[in-house]
Amino acid sequence: MADEPIIISVKGGVCAPQGFFADGLNCGLRKGDQGDLAFIRSDTPCEAAAVFTSNRFAAAPLIHAKKHIDRKVQAIVINAKNANAMTGEEGLKAVYEIVRHIPFENPLTSSTGVIGAPLPVEKIVAGVKRFDWNAKNPDAAARAIMTTDRWDKQIALKIETANGAFTIGAMCKGAGMIAPQLATMLCFVTTDAALSKERLQEHLNNCLDTSFNAISVDGDMSTNDTILALANGKSGAYEPTAFEWALERILRHLALEVVKDGEGASKVAAFEVKGAASYGEAKKAAKALSQSLLVKTALFGADPNWGRIASTIGACGAECDASRLVILIGEIVVYDRGENKMDEATERKAAQVLQGNSFRIVCDLGAGEESFVAYGCDLGYEYVKINADYRT
Amino acid sequence: MADEPIIISVKGGVCAPQGFFADGLNCGLRKGDQGDLAFIRSDTPCEAAAVFTSNRFAAAPLIHAKKHIDRKVQAIVINAKNANAMTGEEGLKAVYEIVRHIPFENPLTSSTGVIGAPLPVEKIVAGVKRFDWNAKNPDAAARAIMTTDRWDKQIALKIETANGAFTIGAMCKGAGMIAPQLATMLCFVTTDAALSKERLQEHLNNCLDTSFNAISVDGDMSTNDTILALANGKSGAYEPTAFEWALERILRHLALEVVKDGEGASKVAAFEVKGAASYGEAKKAAKALSQSLLVKTALFGADPNWGRIASTIGACGAECDASRLVILIGEIVVYDRGENKMDEATERKAAQVLQGNSFRIVCDLGAGEESFVAYGCDLGYEYVKINADYRT
Repeated sequence: MADEPIIISVKGGVCAPQGFFADGLNCGLRKGDQGDLAFIRSDTPCEAAAVFTSNRFAAAPLIHAKKHIDRKVQAIVINAKNANAMTGEEGLKAVYEIVRHIPFENPLTSSTGVIGAPLPVEKIVAGVKRFDWNAKNPDAAARAIMTTDRWDKQIALKIETANGAFTIGAMCKGAGMIAPQLATMLCFVTTDAALSKERLQEHLNNCLDTSFNAISVDGDMSTNDTILALANGKSGAYEPTAFEWALERILRHLALEVVKDGEGASKVAAFEVKGAASYGEAKKAAKALSQSLLVKTALFGADPNWGRIASTIGACGAECDASRLVILIGEIVVYDRGENKMDEATERKAAQVLQGNSFRIVCDLGAGEESFVAYGCDLGYEYVKINADYRT
Repeated sequence: MADEPIIISVKGGVCAPQGFFADGLNCGLRKGDQGDLAFIRSDTPCEAAAVFTSNRFAAAPLIHAKKHIDRKVQAIVINAKNANAMTGEEGLKAVYEIVRHIPFENPLTSSTGVIGAPLPVEKIVAGVKRFDWNAKNPDAAARAIMTTDRWDKQIALKIETANGAFTIGAMCKGAGMIAPQLATMLCFVTTDAALSKERLQEHLNNCLDTSFNAISVDGDMSTNDTILALANGKSGAYEPTAFEWALERILRHLALEVVKDGEGASKVAAFEVKGAASYGEAKKAAKALSQSLLVKTALFGADPNWGRIASTIGACGAECDASRLVILIGEIVVYDRGENKMDEATERKAAQVLQGNSFRIVCDLGAGEESFVAYGCDLGYEYVKINADYRT
C-alpha cells in the first residue's frame, strides 16, 4: 500500500456501510420474545459473493441461492429454529414462496435450525410482511439469527484510503445448536465499497483459509453453512489490499468469536504448527490438533499432556521426526527435540497456561519453513450436556 | 470349504493353543496388587506376523520389533503404565536391556501407558527375572496388560477340519488410558496351526479391515498400537479358509470388546452403510458416522436425531442423493428417500432402540451395491471425566 490506509473499528454492524438496513423480529418460530427472523437489505441491488457448505445435502435456501446469486442481490431474509434442510421439493417451494413476499430485487434466504422438519412458511411470510424495511437495527438482526449462541456476533471496520473511504460490516452466528441439532455457521458481510462481484468473491475466498476454515468446534459440517457478502458500491471507494486486509480481520474476528462461543467451550486455543515441509502439512497438523478429542479434553482439564499433542502430530501424516520436534504450551517448552522437559516446575507452569481462557500451543516440526494457525476450543461436560439432552 | 470345519469356543486364551505359556505379575509400575507385566512364550520359536501403528512417532518397542520380526519369535514381554514412546535413543536401549534378560529366542517387547516418561528398566528386568516361564495363567497375563480397561479381553477358538485340528487364542487391551494418556490398543494372537509367516501375515491383514480397522472410540491413533500373531505349528494342522474365518471372528470379537469398553462408553453402535457406489465410500461414510461427535452425543442422549446422521453422510463426500437416502435406527425407518418419517410414535420407538446397550444404525445411500459396517460408541460425561482429570 503506497499510502497506508487508516482502519478503525466502528459501530453499526451490517448497517455501518452506507445504504444498508437490517432488523429482526419474532414471527413465532421461537418461543418467547427473542427474534427468529432477520433481514438485511440495501438501497440498491448489490454485487454478491458467497461460499456455501460442501455438504452434499445442502439445504433448500442454499440450492435456491446458488441458482440466483449470479444476479445482483438486494435483500436477504434469515430465519432461526428451522434449517429447511432434507426437506426436498417442498423445502424449495417454501423458499420461492418467501422470496415472493420480499419487495426487493432478487432476494435470497438463509436458514438455521432443525433438519428435516417442514419450514413454517406462513409464519415466516407473515413476519416478512411485518418488517420495517427502513429500520437500522443491526443488533436486533444479529440477535434474531442466534441459536444456542450465548452472545450476538458483529463487527464493522471503516477503511480510509488515498482513494476514498469505505466500510465493511458483518454479523455471524456460530456453532450453536437448536436443541439439539446440527451446528450451522452463518455469516453476512455488507460493504459500501465499489467493487465487482468477481473481486468480492476473490477476496472472500482468499480470507477464508485463515478465518472460518481455520476453526473447529466439533469437526462436523452443517447442511446450511453460508458466508454471503453484499457490496452496494455506495461509497464509490475501493482499494484491494486494504479491503482484503480488513475483510480478513473481520472474518477472523468473527471466526474466533464462534470458537469462543463454541458449545460448552470454556477456552480458546491457537494451534500453531511451524517448521512444516509444506503449507498443506502445516494446515493438516494444526487442524488435527484442534480436532483431537484427547487434546480437547486435556485442555478442559488444564492437563499439559504433551504426549497427546505429539501423538496427534505423529498420526496426522505430516513429515516430522521426534528428534526435531519442539512443543511449547504458551511460552513453556515442554518437549525439545527428543527431550522431555517436563519436570515438576515446568509442569506447574504449563498447567497454569492452560488454566487461562486463551493460549497458544506451538509445534515446530523442524521439517521446513511453512506454518499454519488453527483455532479450537476445549471439550467438557457442557458440550455433552448441550448435545445429548433429549429434544423437548 | 469342502468339509465344513467345526469351530468351537474354548477356554485358555493365549494358552489354549498347544505349547504356549503366559503369566502376569506386578513389578512395581502400578500401585496395588494388579499385574503390570506379562509374558507370552512358546515351547519353540514361532512364525510371527504383526501390524503396527502408522503413527510416525512409533514407540521404542515397535521400532525394535519391526527390526527383529523377520526372524522367528519365541517370547514377548508386555508392560503397562509406561508407553516407552517419545523416549529417543534411551527408550530403544531400554528395550535391548530387557530382551537381554528374556531367556528365549528373539524375544520382543510391547508397552502401553504414559508417553515421554523414561521406562523404569530396572523394575521391568527384576520382574522378568521373577517370571515362572512354565506358568499357564492367561487370565493373569490379560489382566496385567489392562490400563483403564474395565475387564480383561480374551478369546480362543478350536477349529476341527478334515486336515486336523488347530487352535487360535488371543488377548487384547483396549482404548483405555493411563490416567490420562493416549489410548493404546494391543492385541496378541497365539496359534498352534502350522502355517508360514507369510500366510500368517496375509490372514492378519485380511482380517483387520472388518475388525480393528472398523472400530472407533475417539478417532485418535496411538504411538503403540500393535497386533502380533505367533504360530508355533505344534498342531501340525492348517486349513486356510477355516483359519481366516476363525481369526476374523476372534479379532472382530476383541475389537467389539474394545468399543464396548471404550472410555466412558455405555453403548455400542454398528453403523451399517449400504447401497454405496464403492467399498471405499461405504467405509468412509460408516467411519464418519462412528466418529461424529454430534452422532456420538445423540446416542448418549438416546436422541433419534436423524438430521445429524444425514448431515454426516452428506459431509463425508460419499456419492449420495437426499431423494434416494434411507435411514433406519434399529428396524425403524426414520427417513425414507426425501420423506421425514418421524411422527411421534416413530420417534418414541426409535428413542427406545437407542436406550439399549447395542443397536444398528443403517444408511442405504441408494447409489450402488457396496456396504461396510463400522463400530462405535456413545460419548458422554464419563469420557470427559476420564480424559480431562488432571494426572495425580
